[in-house]
Amino acid sequence: MTVTCPQSFVEAAHRLADAAGAILRRHFRAPVAVKYKPDATVVTAADRAAEAEIRRLIAEAYPAHGVIGEEYGRDRPDAEHVWVVDPIDGTEAFVAGLPVFGTLIALAHHGRPILGVLDQPVSGERWLGAVGRATTLNDAPARTRPCPALAGALLCATTPHMFEGPDAAPFERVRRAVRIVRYGTDCYAYGLVASGTVDLVIEADMAAYDFLAHVPIIEGAGGVITDWEGRALDLAGGATRVVAAGDPAVHAQALALLAEAGAAGK
Amino acid sequence: MTVTCPQSFVEAAHRLADAAGAILRRHFRAPVAVKYKPDATVVTAADRAAEAEIRRLIAEAYPAHGVIGEEYGRDRPDAEHVWVVDPIDGTEAFVAGLPVFGTLIALAHHGRPILGVLDQPVSGERWLGAVGRATTLNDAPARTRPCPALAGALLCATTPHMFEGPDAAPFERVRRAVRIVRYGTDCYAYGLVASGTVDLVIEADMAAYDFLAHVPIIEGAGGVITDWEGRALDLAGGATRVVAAGDPAVHAQALALLAEAGAAGK
Repeated sequence: MTVTCPQSFVEAAHRLADAAGAILRRHFRAPVAVKYKPDATVVTAADRAAEAEIRRLIAEAYPAHGVIGEEYGRDRPDAEHVWVVDPIDGTEAFVAGLPVFGTLIALAHHGRPILGVLDQPVSGERWLGAVGRATTLNDAPARTRPCPALAGALLCATTPHMFEGPDAAPFERVRRAVRIVRYGTDCYAYGLVASGTVDLVIEADMAAYDFLAHVPIIEGAGGVITDWEGRALDLAGGATRVVAAGDPAVHAQALALLAEAGAAGK
Repeated sequence: MTVTCPQSFVEAAHRLADAAGAILRRHFRAPVAVKYKPDATVVTAADRAAEAEIRRLIAEAYPAHGVIGEEYGRDRPDAEHVWVVDPIDGTEAFVAGLPVFGTLIALAHHGRPILGVLDQPVSGERWLGAVGRATTLNDAPARTRPCPALAGALLCATTPHMFEGPDAAPFERVRRAVRIVRYGTDCYAYGLVASGTVDLVIEADMAAYDFLAHVPIIEGAGGVITDWEGRALDLAGGATRVVAAGDPAVHAQALALLAEAGAAGK
């Protein structure tokens, strides 16, 4: 069954990203009070202000929809439509003044992502993917590039320290098999896969608000995105480890390397 | 002795960065043929074209000056004035489509850096430092921020894999002592130190064209930049390991941790 994402939701997602971006630009590189959450991740007033504004706009336009956000938790998570929001994916990059953070906005329908926005408000880049239409970067078509072999791939991950315990060795196998590895990329790397300058992103320690928006963006650009076992990513599955690739061949080769001796690592 | 950098050299450096930036913007995210040099680093037609244009302009304006560049080697390296150029610092970032690469242009007088430009041609950010004047970002003053303790510092490095052999453990000691570590930053991190959103950069496996431009930029913004032993960075010293900090206290604490048990690591 193919569900096409209604255009009204696409327009709403643009409005949400516009509102968040205006807030984030005001805070970017301004002196900022950084707080540390119980899980040792960072949060700023900008995260909270942007998510609060996104929630306000959703409640106004779609009072029956659910919302799940990184900063303010879960409202109606079992609704037919649920917006899944990370106001700043890459808060550490934001705090450092690096323009590779972004606002992630996904819309799930019966738990499956049908719309995703990745907005970089400093560079003014916005990737948008939605079921039934081609992914765009600032309204121009975005396409992944061919990369037939892992040995020629450019791999991104936010940090090697995100791969803890049994996740470390599988990542290391893939890292040693590719041509170039780049760290420090946060959500931005997924946009670059969609635009065909990066071939592969492998990450761990993720939540739904970290990856759900990337699903329509990557798929609508010709790529493949799943968990490390090759399963589709949705709202309920509880996946925490993600593989996104522009070329299905690279995705398959990465999955195989991640799984190799995987049982021994558990 | 304080040497003030003549304004004519500052203006020349702007012209060189303008010319390189125009070339790099044309190549950014365009399909690119990546070549691998004998040392396994990457180079593109954009690197070569930008450095060739910089060299042409220097030869035209200052035929007696020396030039040392990453791609085309050394011309008159013993001249009184030597331009030291990396047309793309962060070629892997450039190839990936990440706007954290930059053009580095330094001018050394009797081997000591008196002028440095760090230009990011996609975001349109240009840091400029010169002996005798305050560092600027796009002509506005840039200042480092206070950071009295390493435990509160935001540390950047391009990749943990640049710390090989005996360099790995010292870096790891500092990484575990700071609050936040960000990878994937290339030259951009030094600009952010100058602008006061990053506190510390530690790198290894560097050449003079990778760090010389940062010296006037960091020092003119209130920071400190040396090799891992605390020695000044110049053209002849052969340093390959760099520490830059916005606050002298963090610089001193980082040096101490890098040196701890250093003899055992050699």
